[in-house]
Amino acid sequence: MKKMMLVYGALIVAFLLYVFMYRLEDKRTSSWEEGGLHGSIGESYVMVTFQSGMEYWKNILKGFEDGGDALGVTVDYRGATQYDVKEQITVLEQVIAKRPAGIALSAIDSKALTPTINKAVDAGIPVVLFDADAPDSKAYSFLATNNYNAGAAAADKMAELLGREGEVGIITQTGQQNHDDRTAGFRETLEKSYPAMSVVEIREGKGDIIASKEAAARMMEKFPELKGIFATEANGGAGAADAAIAAGRAEDVRIIGFDTNKVTLDRISDGTISATIAQGTWNMGYWSLQYLFHLHHGLTVPAPTLGNDVAPLPPRVDTGITIVTQENVKDYYAK
Amino acid sequence: MKKMMLVYGALIVAFLLYVFMYRLEDKRTSSWEEGGLHGSIGESYVMVTFQSGMEYWKNILKGFEDGGDALGVTVDYRGATQYDVKEQITVLEQVIAKRPAGIALSAIDSKALTPTINKAVDAGIPVVLFDADAPDSKAYSFLATNNYNAGAAAADKMAELLGREGEVGIITQTGQQNHDDRTAGFRETLEKSYPAMSVVEIREGKGDIIASKEAAARMMEKFPELKGIFATEANGGAGAADAAIAAGRAEDVRIIGFDTNKVTLDRISDGTISATIAQGTWNMGYWSLQYLFHLHHGLTVPAPTLGNDVAPLPPRVDTGITIVTQENVKDYYAK
Repeated sequence: MKKMMLVYGALIVAFLLYVFMYRLEDKRTSSWEEGGLHGSIGESYVMVTFQSGMEYWKNILKGFEDGGDALGVTVDYRGATQYDVKEQITVLEQVIAKRPAGIALSAIDSKALTPTINKAVDAGIPVVLFDADAPDSKAYSFLATNNYNAGAAAADKMAELLGREGEVGIITQTGQQNHDDRTAGFRETLEKSYPAMSVVEIREGKGDIIASKEAAARMMEKFPELKGIFATEANGGAGAADAAIAAGRAEDVRIIGFDTNKVTLDRISDGTISATIAQGTWNMGYWSLQYLFHLHHGLTVPAPTLGNDVAPLPPRVDTGITIVTQENVKDYYAK
Repeated sequence: MKKMMLVYGALIVAFLLYVFMYRLEDKRTSSWEEGGLHGSIGESYVMVTFQSGMEYWKNILKGFEDGGDALGVTVDYRGATQYDVKEQITVLEQVIAKRPAGIALSAIDSKALTPTINKAVDAGIPVVLFDADAPDSKAYSFLATNNYNAGAAAADKMAELLGREGEVGIITQTGQQNHDDRTAGFRETLEKSYPAMSVVEIREGKGDIIASKEAAARMMEKFPELKGIFATEANGGAGAADAAIAAGRAEDVRIIGFDTNKVTLDRISDGTISATIAQGTWNMGYWSLQYLFHLHHGLTVPAPTLGNDVAPLPPRVDTGITIVTQENVKDYYAK
């Protein structure tokens, strides 16, 4: 009986000790938790695009997923399969019906999408926009490349490639705001910072390899001293490279392209395109997720309201660019 | 003896149940933690300013501290006590010597601070800038008010106040980029969006209440139909309010000011200033801390390099504005 009581007593002491230590550990964990940002698996954040199979979205979705992993929440991807306004509105309506914790949207048409975006926000679902804006909507933020700055960075790179002197041309798609901004940033930066360089011609490339090749060929004919070409979109760079090779001037004319499709990366690998501008797509996805998380958890100051007079989050974010050359081109094939 | 054994058995079962449930809870907590962003108390992030006692920094520091609390890291505040370039360089050198996890700096002079900023970055200490930029430095991001957009928001508010028609004037401090941008945003937005409104005059207020009062008095004399005044800085708004009261036109001339110093808030409370533009100062501090945390923990894509060809973070962030009126003025006194 005495032995039994001893064993009994020892067990109680061990039990109390165990509970006490667990509580201690629990407290440490709790104070850590207080100091960490994390959601729950039940929180679902949805990224919505159009032409949803397009290569371009992949790295944005990677950023969005990395944000979800970092914060311990669930992410989902939806999109119109075609370049179709009505289809995107339908997809967005379906997403809203599921009442997710937040929606990151690239708006195929800024005006047509506005009522549906506002419907989500009015229903208390946070919305941010990336890559393509709907400026008159109630969405809380717009994360995208500042195209003027991207053009300016291309100008600085061109100046570096050409030793700060020489004639250069631009191949662009006129009438599209993003391309006009890239052209303006490039031209104005050369004018302001590189007096021994000049833009001698701006030609239409129609976003097409053949048309851009033709445009570049005529430009090189007209300006035998031409030292560089900046193309404001991917097919323009590929076309210019084809033209330079055909004219036997691939060694003399340095080409800077835009975006990181396979043709452009191959041309960088073989040296016929000197550099291309990679947009900060990961940043668009990652910081969209962060912003939605902060809205969902009420972590912003000021708190969001339904009017446009309050900015609970940075309303506009330049997600930046990275210049891709032979040195780092390998990193971009991986994606 | 049998009774004893029963009690004993019941205790053991209770104990095992307790342990089992604790473990379950622990597991849930652990998987939560894996999915959370948190640093350690040993990580120290420093915010560096000039005229460090200035009211304006308080809410930026609050955002920086809230970021530190959210991520479980330590923050510190340092600054030159005076408006003194050399003193700020010395303070920054002292901060660098302690090798903090990151530095958020408002640069008193963009050129003079650049070598010291670059020294920090070259030593592997992440630096971001807020409110005042050093665009040629190696700092990774700049978080500040887009002053053009702030002026545009003031124009939209003025249009709302005046029913989209009438003559308005501007009182500004010419020759300062931030004020010129606010003026341009205000004027161009009225021109573009409100055909029945016009800016009839832009006058110099010298950032001074007396000079601004004088400027506003002359403007009201010259334009008896004047319906509104936008002041691009705090003393301009206060001066314009004094002039409107003195002329007996406080009821007819609507004034929009800038920033949230006490005089402006008092004037909003008594109705002589209709609205003022509060900068997104909390956003500057909070997202600076987040950016430094992401750099310190290597969470960015792409990873940072020492050149300017890579953007591991959004290089430029518009931290937004909030329009303060009688409705929400109380929130701004608290700070």
